[in-house]
Amino acid sequence: MEIPYKIYLSESEMPRYWYNVRADMKKKPAPLLNPGTHKPMTAAELSGVFCDELVKQELDNTTREYPIPEEILSFYRMYRPSPLVRAYCLEEKLKTPAKIYYKFEGNNTSGSHKLNSAVAQAYYAKQQGLKGVTTETGAGQWGTALSMACSYFGLDCKVYMVKVSYEQKPFRREVMKVYGASVTPSPSDTTQVGRKILQEHPGTTGSLGCAISEAVETAVSNPGYRYVLGSVLNQVLLHQSVIGVETKIAMDKYGIHPDVIIGCAGGGSNLGGLIAPFMGEKLRGERDCRFIAVEPASCPSLTRGVYAYDFCDTGMVCPLAKMYTLGSDFIPAPNHAGGLRYHGMSPILSELYHQGMLEAVSVPQTAVFEAAEAFARVEGILPAPESSHAIKAAMDEAIRCRETGEEKTILFGLTGTGYFDLVAYEKFHNGQMDDYVPTDEELTAYAAKLPKI
Amino acid sequence: MEIPYKIYLSESEMPRYWYNVRADMKKKPAPLLNPGTHKPMTAAELSGVFCDELVKQELDNTTREYPIPEEILSFYRMYRPSPLVRAYCLEEKLKTPAKIYYKFEGNNTSGSHKLNSAVAQAYYAKQQGLKGVTTETGAGQWGTALSMACSYFGLDCKVYMVKVSYEQKPFRREVMKVYGASVTPSPSDTTQVGRKILQEHPGTTGSLGCAISEAVETAVSNPGYRYVLGSVLNQVLLHQSVIGVETKIAMDKYGIHPDVIIGCAGGGSNLGGLIAPFMGEKLRGERDCRFIAVEPASCPSLTRGVYAYDFCDTGMVCPLAKMYTLGSDFIPAPNHAGGLRYHGMSPILSELYHQGMLEAVSVPQTAVFEAAEAFARVEGILPAPESSHAIKAAMDEAIRCRETGEEKTILFGLTGTGYFDLVAYEKFHNGQMDDYVPTDEELTAYAAKLPKI
Repeated sequence: MEIPYKIYLSESEMPRYWYNVRADMKKKPAPLLNPGTHKPMTAAELSGVFCDELVKQELDNTTREYPIPEEILSFYRMYRPSPLVRAYCLEEKLKTPAKIYYKFEGNNTSGSHKLNSAVAQAYYAKQQGLKGVTTETGAGQWGTALSMACSYFGLDCKVYMVKVSYEQKPFRREVMKVYGASVTPSPSDTTQVGRKILQEHPGTTGSLGCAISEAVETAVSNPGYRYVLGSVLNQVLLHQSVIGVETKIAMDKYGIHPDVIIGCAGGGSNLGGLIAPFMGEKLRGERDCRFIAVEPASCPSLTRGVYAYDFCDTGMVCPLAKMYTLGSDFIPAPNHAGGLRYHGMSPILSELYHQGMLEAVSVPQTAVFEAAEAFARVEGILPAPESSHAIKAAMDEAIRCRETGEEKTILFGLTGTGYFDLVAYEKFHNGQMDDYVPTDEELTAYAAKLPKI
Repeated sequence: MEIPYKIYLSESEMPRYWYNVRADMKKKPAPLLNPGTHKPMTAAELSGVFCDELVKQELDNTTREYPIPEEILSFYRMYRPSPLVRAYCLEEKLKTPAKIYYKFEGNNTSGSHKLNSAVAQAYYAKQQGLKGVTTETGAGQWGTALSMACSYFGLDCKVYMVKVSYEQKPFRREVMKVYGASVTPSPSDTTQVGRKILQEHPGTTGSLGCAISEAVETAVSNPGYRYVLGSVLNQVLLHQSVIGVETKIAMDKYGIHPDVIIGCAGGGSNLGGLIAPFMGEKLRGERDCRFIAVEPASCPSLTRGVYAYDFCDTGMVCPLAKMYTLGSDFIPAPNHAGGLRYHGMSPILSELYHQGMLEAVSVPQTAVFEAAEAFARVEGILPAPESSHAIKAAMDEAIRCRETGEEKTILFGLTGTGYFDLVAYEKFHNGQMDDYVPTDEELTAYAAKLPKI
């Protein structure tokens, strides 16, 4: 069977279930802990913050497959299947014997993979009869995705947007408004936690951690609202597994077996989703594969953080999660790859990394933009800075193959487009790009403040 | 055979030829005239401005099918096939018995259909051994598309960008730079014609007509350069026929026959391409269909212009074309639907309109943005303002079907995405949208200045 240049599944071939990688992990990710008692969070405790069905998914370490509800499948059909593309032009440019594939999740108005979980979370909120949801957004992809999903299901949507992104990406706000969401720069004076952070750090440009605190406070203090999160959580990785399942169906159809799978990692939603079914095969001992998380050198939670219980948010109102973390009050340098500015990492990916099932590398920002531009010129797509971390690592891997002569099959996740990141591209063109990396002393100081559990 | 929600052709089903609608027109579009002698432009005269192969295509009124060169097919495979989508959610919202389909051309980094002709024109320039090309761009889609194509083939690319768009859409500049193009706001002091226009209209926000003059002057005064144009010309409609041919193959496969086909029309490249093979059937008497051009009320060349020979550019350096025109020095009000600000209309479409084969309507801008937002909320895609003219007309048609109970099949062209148009969306949200329409007196005054031929 001839392999097409771009593989699109037909509607009948598309995944009808999400895959829960926890079911195949012998050692499960550590449970979320109640920040007061340090005991595992119960479903009852979590249900004040999250929808009931999402709480169930969050805590379920055993069910391997979740059927995707018909309403969500209908929404998925609006922008899925996403193409699996053979990067012939990139291979030629790199003169590599490697075969490079990418799964492109940017062909929807949110501009990224985030829509996969947004629609699921909005659907369950609607099913539960809620009025609306609150959330945070970094670069804006998640907020846009959630706005689209809420508009579709007729839910109110309140978004706290990390201030640096709110200011650098004003157009993202307008897209969210097109879909009827309200958008507040974070930290803000609309919440107790926001006011406290502003008082302690008056000039702060914000962080995902702050914005999460504000969104959670708003959800629990408004009846009929729940909080939803675009990454980190087990439920999000479950929904995002649609990326990996779709990729695997496409690859299996043509007998393609990746030797290495690469994804950018901020909170871990894309990487966790992309690798899920392939990691399942590895965990079950059926087929081996390397997995590489790529994070920014400015926010290196896996490569330089510690594996410990920590707060998911700066305001310390959320449950504690065991994860690779830089400390919940670590505020990264204003890094234009906004979506990867999170201090921690998905507990699932953290545990897999701890078990040695997953590798991690960190890359400096300028090198990421160089890779982004090189990719754009040969493959046509203008990539998001976040996604470009994966491009950079995939190119490095392909160059190693050129040196060793190995004909590896490399798969990477191209999570989104960079149409809203042109301020960053402009800085790159003007030589104003910041390559700040935190010092060991800084990281040690943050780590010393981790909760003692 | 069940019809998928989105129809993607497989690579083997994709068009391998462009369709030249002129071959099926009994009365051909009027020839371009030499502005000095008023005699038809010869191939020799045109070859100073355009590549030789493109001159041939421009003048060829008889060849029905042009095989698409293999190198162009390879490039097309990077972003084609584009999906043909059934707008179920829009139908439901409008409670219409009509079946609405749209051909979505926005899923590539140029954000529009413009890439279809850009790659063809860059390819032929490269084949001829040229150093580079010059062009104008309005909203920036064409300039972006050409930059991408030139980057792929290793050609230099000089873009004159209408000043109002250059200022309102700074990010488009950066995209063009990612692909290595140089971008100059027009009118500029880099050309004689630009300096003249600036002297006569010091505060002008520019127009496509001005920018064309500057780009042509730069091409003819730099050895190894030729000028390329993103719309209006016969050659461009030929390349854009890939949209219509692809649509027709998809529709024929599933036995779908459109009753009405709707497209926005500035210079006519998208509409001309989309309708081409369907118009061919009508011209040959094989199957009837209605065709509707939708233009902005602020720049109504078909609905309020005159059918006469006119200059294609403000500086009057280009050949004369017979077309529906508002006059070559008509400068439309600063209208955010930048791509539809052209004073004239493709000679092919003008002749078809004159023969009564094509209808035209004009729509005011606020109504267009209302339609755009309604569409975005139910169909997910954030449309370009240009494309939203077609959405508005398609919605109006579907609403009429609701009233009459007719189950018409409506097809419209969704030419691009609005990610770079959020300044306009912001104005719309803030009630600052301009609905200026030129008065009859203004139009009469412009028409009085048309060349006497």
